[in-house]
Amino acid sequence: MSNILRRGRLQSTPDEDIMKFTSSMKSDKWIFDADIMVDFAHTIMLKEQGIIDEHDCSSILKGLIRIREEGIEQLDHSYEDIHISLESKLIDIVGEEVGGRMHSGRSRNDEVATCIRLTLREEMIALMEELNLLRRTLCSVAADNIETLMPGFTHLQHAQPTTLAHHLVAHMDALGRDVERLKDAYSRVNLSPLGAAAFASTGFNINRERTMKLLGFDGLVENSMDAVSSRDFLIECTAMLANIMINLSKMAEELVIWSTAEFAFIELDDRYASTSSIMPQKKNPDTAELLRGKAGVVAGSLMALITTCKALPLSYNRDLQEATPNMWNALETTRSSVRMMDGMMRTMKINREIMALKSVIGFTTATELADTIVRATGIPFRTAHQIVGILSRREGDINLQQIDSVADKILGIKLSSKGLTEELVGEALDPICNIKKRNVIGGPAFEEMEKAIIRRKDNIKHTEEEIRVLKNKSESSLNMLMELVKQYIAKA
Amino acid sequence: MSNILRRGRLQSTPDEDIMKFTSSMKSDKWIFDADIMVDFAHTIMLKEQGIIDEHDCSSILKGLIRIREEGIEQLDHSYEDIHISLESKLIDIVGEEVGGRMHSGRSRNDEVATCIRLTLREEMIALMEELNLLRRTLCSVAADNIETLMPGFTHLQHAQPTTLAHHLVAHMDALGRDVERLKDAYSRVNLSPLGAAAFASTGFNINRERTMKLLGFDGLVENSMDAVSSRDFLIECTAMLANIMINLSKMAEELVIWSTAEFAFIELDDRYASTSSIMPQKKNPDTAELLRGKAGVVAGSLMALITTCKALPLSYNRDLQEATPNMWNALETTRSSVRMMDGMMRTMKINREIMALKSVIGFTTATELADTIVRATGIPFRTAHQIVGILSRREGDINLQQIDSVADKILGIKLSSKGLTEELVGEALDPICNIKKRNVIGGPAFEEMEKAIIRRKDNIKHTEEEIRVLKNKSESSLNMLMELVKQYIAKA
Amino acid sequence: MSNILRRGRLQSTPDEDIMKFTSSMKSDKWIFDADIMVDFAHTIMLKEQGIIDEHDCSSILKGLIRIREEGIEQLDHSYEDIHISLESKLIDIVGEEVGGRMHSGRSRNDEVATCIRLTLREEMIALMEELNLLRRTLCSVAADNIETLMPGFTHLQHAQPTTLAHHLVAHMDALGRDVERLKDAYSRVNLSPLGAAAFASTGFNINRERTMKLLGFDGLVENSMDAVSSRDFLIECTAMLANIMINLSKMAEELVIWSTAEFAFIELDDRYASTSSIMPQKKNPDTAELLRGKAGVVAGSLMALITTCKALPLSYNRDLQEATPNMWNALETTRSSVRMMDGMMRTMKINREIMALKSVIGFTTATELADTIVRATGIPFRTAHQIVGILSRREGDINLQQIDSVADKILGIKLSSKGLTEELVGEALDPICNIKKRNVIGGPAFEEMEKAIIRRKDNIKHTEEEIRVLKNKSESSLNMLMELVKQYIAKA
Amino acid sequence: MSNILRRGRLQSTPDEDIMKFTSSMKSDKWIFDADIMVDFAHTIMLKEQGIIDEHDCSSILKGLIRIREEGIEQLDHSYEDIHISLESKLIDIVGEEVGGRMHSGRSRNDEVATCIRLTLREEMIALMEELNLLRRTLCSVAADNIETLMPGFTHLQHAQPTTLAHHLVAHMDALGRDVERLKDAYSRVNLSPLGAAAFASTGFNINRERTMKLLGFDGLVENSMDAVSSRDFLIECTAMLANIMINLSKMAEELVIWSTAEFAFIELDDRYASTSSIMPQKKNPDTAELLRGKAGVVAGSLMALITTCKALPLSYNRDLQEATPNMWNALETTRSSVRMMDGMMRTMKINREIMALKSVIGFTTATELADTIVRATGIPFRTAHQIVGILSRREGDINLQQIDSVADKILGIKLSSKGLTEELVGEALDPICNIKKRNVIGGPAFEEMEKAIIRRKDNIKHTEEEIRVLKNKSESSLNMLMELVKQYIAKA
Repeated sequence: MSNILRRGRLQSTPDEDIMKFTSSMKSDKWIFDADIMVDFAHTIMLKEQGIIDEHDCSSILKGLIRIREEGIEQLDHSYEDIHISLESKLIDIVGEEVGGRMHSGRSRNDEVATCIRLTLREEMIALMEELNLLRRTLCSVAADNIETLMPGFTHLQHAQPTTLAHHLVAHMDALGRDVERLKDAYSRVNLSPLGAAAFASTGFNINRERTMKLLGFDGLVENSMDAVSSRDFLIECTAMLANIMINLSKMAEELVIWSTAEFAFIELDDRYASTSSIMPQKKNPDTAELLRGKAGVVAGSLMALITTCKALPLSYNRDLQEATPNMWNALETTRSSVRMMDGMMRTMKINREIMALKSVIGFTTATELADTIVRATGIPFRTAHQIVGILSRREGDINLQQIDSVADKILGIKLSSKGLTEELVGEALDPICNIKKRNVIGGPAFEEMEKAIIRRKDNIKHTEEEIRVLKNKSESSLNMLMELVKQYIAKA
Repeated sequence: MSNILRRGRLQSTPDEDIMKFTSSMKSDKWIFDADIMVDFAHTIMLKEQGIIDEHDCSSILKGLIRIREEGIEQLDHSYEDIHISLESKLIDIVGEEVGGRMHSGRSRNDEVATCIRLTLREEMIALMEELNLLRRTLCSVAADNIETLMPGFTHLQHAQPTTLAHHLVAHMDALGRDVERLKDAYSRVNLSPLGAAAFASTGFNINRERTMKLLGFDGLVENSMDAVSSRDFLIECTAMLANIMINLSKMAEELVIWSTAEFAFIELDDRYASTSSIMPQKKNPDTAELLRGKAGVVAGSLMALITTCKALPLSYNRDLQEATPNMWNALETTRSSVRMMDGMMRTMKINREIMALKSVIGFTTATELADTIVRATGIPFRTAHQIVGILSRREGDINLQQIDSVADKILGIKLSSKGLTEELVGEALDPICNIKKRNVIGGPAFEEMEKAIIRRKDNIKHTEEEIRVLKNKSESSLNMLMELVKQYIAKA
Repeated sequence: MSNILRRGRLQSTPDEDIMKFTSSMKSDKWIFDADIMVDFAHTIMLKEQGIIDEHDCSSILKGLIRIREEGIEQLDHSYEDIHISLESKLIDIVGEEVGGRMHSGRSRNDEVATCIRLTLREEMIALMEELNLLRRTLCSVAADNIETLMPGFTHLQHAQPTTLAHHLVAHMDALGRDVERLKDAYSRVNLSPLGAAAFASTGFNINRERTMKLLGFDGLVENSMDAVSSRDFLIECTAMLANIMINLSKMAEELVIWSTAEFAFIELDDRYASTSSIMPQKKNPDTAELLRGKAGVVAGSLMALITTCKALPLSYNRDLQEATPNMWNALETTRSSVRMMDGMMRTMKINREIMALKSVIGFTTATELADTIVRATGIPFRTAHQIVGILSRREGDINLQQIDSVADKILGIKLSSKGLTEELVGEALDPICNIKKRNVIGGPAFEEMEKAIIRRKDNIKHTEEEIRVLKNKSESSLNMLMELVKQYIAKA
Repeated sequence: MSNILRRGRLQSTPDEDIMKFTSSMKSDKWIFDADIMVDFAHTIMLKEQGIIDEHDCSSILKGLIRIREEGIEQLDHSYEDIHISLESKLIDIVGEEVGGRMHSGRSRNDEVATCIRLTLREEMIALMEELNLLRRTLCSVAADNIETLMPGFTHLQHAQPTTLAHHLVAHMDALGRDVERLKDAYSRVNLSPLGAAAFASTGFNINRERTMKLLGFDGLVENSMDAVSSRDFLIECTAMLANIMINLSKMAEELVIWSTAEFAFIELDDRYASTSSIMPQKKNPDTAELLRGKAGVVAGSLMALITTCKALPLSYNRDLQEATPNMWNALETTRSSVRMMDGMMRTMKINREIMALKSVIGFTTATELADTIVRATGIPFRTAHQIVGILSRREGDINLQQIDSVADKILGIKLSSKGLTEELVGEALDPICNIKKRNVIGGPAFEEMEKAIIRRKDNIKHTEEEIRVLKNKSESSLNMLMELVKQYIAKA
């Protein structure tokens, strides 16, 4: 049969090169399942509102079931998109007299927006689950490493001693915010544009709230022009994906650096490594490098999306077809990156001895020494900072005598005369003492860290519960819709 | 006096070219006020915890008051940042013996993160207010144009008749989501990193909850490593700014197109227009064009921020200094763009007659005609679509006879024999009838639009109230802090 | 057989999820043909240098021929990339004793860089050819429209009368620079990294100049560390693609605007348009919109590439695997966009009458009137600008009397008393006179335009010749290589 | 006096907020000098063509000289741009009767495009000079380190021994391509748009070739519409800046990593380092970090530029005002980054002993061992790769016996029986022997490296000469123009 859309207004037909340029079929695989669900809901609503009759409704639903079972591969891929290809297939199956009624009171503009939101909703839930799993892994590795000393870095320079637990919880908390953001965005994604039709809604007596509920949406994208033309939710979500990838890229960078011969803090499991085609001894942290590279790819997707959407007048413009695939690609990349990070973290070998040894190299206890001087002698911090700074230029170990000698030059007094003792200096220079003293909330002290981990375990559980609620609502709505479809088919 | 930081560890001094490269003083003007508030809160907490004594506390506070009064211009701009310049000035005023104690138990790393969050909080509130004002303006223009007919566009082609109110509410709703997003982000911005010190917290007995409350923060960025190194909140906020600018760029594009001789839908007020240095007759919609261009600039700021943050290991790295100014620039650009759009919308002249005349050009009522055929005759929508599509290729007016003739060729029947009448056709072709029929929720029908505007007025009021609550909390916290500062000074 | 790379250093095997994450097979389809050519050249060089013997050489070449004939689909896609998959297949065919020698003295690092450059070279030539075809089309449409009047725009406002030819040549010249840039970049692309091995070159007595010549490269990427790790040529080329797409997006924007009911300057051929699933009368300029959207996609690819390459230390890092596909995608998108623009331009219907009618709307002749006043009366341009600016605020036609009246108010004199006549005013207000006067080089005057088109036709021919030289060199080198392969096989 | 532009067509005046939004004065400081030169050239051409008389010419030139001497600060900054502010100032000085004639036959559209190109030309020359200086520094450090052993990295893992010279030359060659690109772009930048006027050229009898020559341009941007609206040269140049910054960011990343306690390959000079406000022992490689961060900023500028230019119809649109500052910022950032890198490289301390010690850690000689086995025994490379791969999993030193044992298991033969000797094994495991063998062109062998450095020294000299030619032409043109200005003034 001839193209059901083009047989009216248009006369000549695009050649293959044009079709390839204009078709969205390649990325429409993402929304095939959703499109069928949207067709189910729309058809049932049409019947309930008396716009189509019971027989037509049941025939259409049967046809859609068959299309779903045959899968997307059986559709005619020469159409410009999945929607028209699917409608065309339906008409092939049930005839135009019946199938030609499905598209009453809607347009591809509201249809595609609804499909994207439905699919994205599921993907966001899955991503939140995966992020939470990664947080769980980090929490568990942290719990095992509360007393694993390591050098804390600023500017990639040894700064002060800390613990691996303290370090990993920093990443965990960043990912926790990523989950929060996704939850917030979810409430703006899970809204129904259906019924907006081309942009002006429709003169048919449709019921937007009904299709909204059938599809498990939490509300409407009310204004019908806004409903079909807004893609701010894509930008919002992809920006979040970029934020996740930036967070992961920082962890990946550390995995790469920590895997070097020089650092040797960790060794990735062989599964996540590759060797060289020429250098037989090589074990490369490829998965971490690729993940780091993919952060750039997701940043590019965000930029593509923003640039594409810029300065488009209302309402629907075909440019939007180019916008969506960037989000799907970013989503797929991000989800797999989260899983890879989880796997690497779960399986890496931690070289605790090396980390502990390095924790004091580079005079990392200098801050504590300055603080100790302040507390013992009452001189101002900025002056203590200067004294220790001058000491740090020397070679060899620090002792009270040296401190006195420097203080004498600067202040004209010996600090030993103001209460500084060898014992206090010794404590200040001991990394474990250092860490134990840092027991303010959020600090690395062992005790504080134990509490921090308990708080995070609770938070993870709580978040899991929240995600489960969203998931259950989504799934049960779609299950009920399928039930209704079966009832309508059975009736006929 | 010599550089209070460099006199210890480092010996040679950067030349002017290096200083210019490394200094952040230029963009630190954004955080000067916040830095003083942070110093106030930190100093008072140090006193309350017994880390400094009452006299030192009051001297420091007095010194800070003086610095605030003298303003940022009086600081020594040869320092690498505002924090050390300010501390150095304080030491100049009150002496190192006193002023050298202020930096106890903190670092520039937590200090700058706190300053950024404090300033950003105020800016976000101001932006939300401005966005809401723009929504109010759009609502008001929409309320005056509920019956202003215009062609609704898809693909910039005339599609169906709609109203200016319907069109403007679409933009308004998009901006409403922008406000929602900012509110969500606010809860992740208004948290205190203070007390994280360099990244490992501190051995001083500080009280992080106290400074958090003094500064009006809603909670802590708990993990001290996360607190100093995370800039995801900057990416989140700047992505929102980009989303706002994309929304505004769409409106700006329409203003430019609607101002053309060809469209002539509107005329911008002279204030927002420029003329040509050579073409004396020109009146150009420059402000709208610039706003559209600035959307690109904000997109670039976002990309700069993301690219800068990518793959930085924990904790603080100096790269972050390059990140923040991108956010400030994006913020300033977005805030002024919102105000410009508000001004343009408030003052533009609307050519209602032209819009109404154009609303039927291009057979915009074809959809309603197809829908009418479906409802009158019971033929499927897809078939009616084909019939009207063929009619649309013809020149001249459409009438029942022509419809019958096309239907006869395709279906072998005349639609007049199935119930289609001249009257129904006439109604279908009338733009006002078209709009009146589109009375589903979110549609352009006059009655529905009146309700939609009432709902939005309520929403704007509600949102104003929410913003006011945030603003009051922020302002009253800082007022109380100032009160406390005065008390401590008075005591001494 | 077990994985020929992993059987040595590594023990556990990645699961499917990891393989999918790390494999580059999907985008390696771009370099399959090139990889075989590189294998041919490397193998022959190994033989010529005495590193492998004649029998092994001929067996390897025969194996490679078979792999090429079977195609990429027959390779084992469970390997991490095409290179190792291809080598593994070769070993399957000819045995490790022979096939295991092919990779002597090289690494995948130099191999992949060589493959990318070889493929990119061909693609650049093809793109230059397509761009030149589009320039030829524009030149031809321009030649047909030297006297087609239209309003020239600044700020999308009618500014001065011009011609369609003048307008199209502006686009043509921009595309001409795109070709120039590609030619410049070609000289940096067509260089051989082969022989750099992993990054340190090799201890085998290889001959880099020989493989360079066999593959038709113009020179070496000499330093072996630079050779394997530099991707600046990808950034350079993709930035050029972005520049091309920006140029095309500007043309696409015009096609969209010119297709509106309001402008109606052109009508796209049906092939490049779509209709609506709901609005049967619609004819949408979809191909132009998609092209405009794809400009955003290419911008995103560029950003992905830059972000991915940022801050990678020497030499090869696996992140680079994520870089290349962005360039391929940008390349494919750009090439098809150039072809689409060519098709749209070749087939669009131009509404000359409408364009001509609009050419004077909006007092487009005001500049010429001001200039005429300057030339006739000797008053300064800036004063004439003010007089005509005031006139432009009036309704209705302009005549000498009105001019005198305004001049009298401002200058206290009548311009008719200084030499301005009705005839001169009439000429100034005539669009054709306007255009004829603009006969400086680069202006729209008919005569000047004729010359301009002749110059461009010459330039196109010249450029075609230059491209042909590059193409011939590339093709004949590869043909000679194939000839040599056949000779070596025949010898055995 | 009232605004010389707005007094005609427009009536109301923008308020301060609007002025701030629309004004380009802030970034016009970049083109103040150029604008005066353009005014000089245009005025002289007007006189030579008889469009203005000698007296007016000389008065205008005198006025311009005075404006130049007073500097940009003395201009009225309430105008929307430098051009109109400057013209207005001129009219203040010499009166409208004279000064009002300067803008005859041109527009701000061609004026600003000319100013940008003129300034950019100077900046490009300066940047090329600075890049060449950095290359000279790298060449010199490399020359001093031809025998400085270091581990060569792939995936940041020790891969094979190499030398610091080999490593630095890789960076040097990348920067060499950056200079080449700039030279290519220069030929597209140094063209004159002047005379294009608003976009349609002009009816005045101007001479475009004359102003082109007076200003030292190499040709015209011929088509007058193209001349005022094309900004592809900005995208091209900014993309090159991004490429330079990516190259520098890679070097900066290495400086940061090499400065760690773990690597300790180098120590930056104190001038390029900072310390901590809290940790007195810290010496941070801040300048390298900032430079790395600034790469992100330049990437953002590029993206802003591209996004801003996308989909703008011909000819001039005000959006372009937002485009240019992104390029200036990127340029300033890049130029200072090149100078910083030069300074860091010139002054850093190289820890040769540590680098040499590390050069063999991680079995970096494994490749050479496999290659030696191939050459000594004739077994295929892929088999040798497997044998050495298995050996690399063992602890401790490698010797012939172990090799035999592994080979026996895999091949059933001992390699000692096929010609492998202890001596050959010993040589293969020696890093200096390794490097000496890598003497193919581009490899690290000492001898080859000496030659490589000589070739680069020649290239640097040659490039300096090329840059000098461009610079001389530019400078002497402008000097001649100044000479002419003086003559015209003297004549009057």
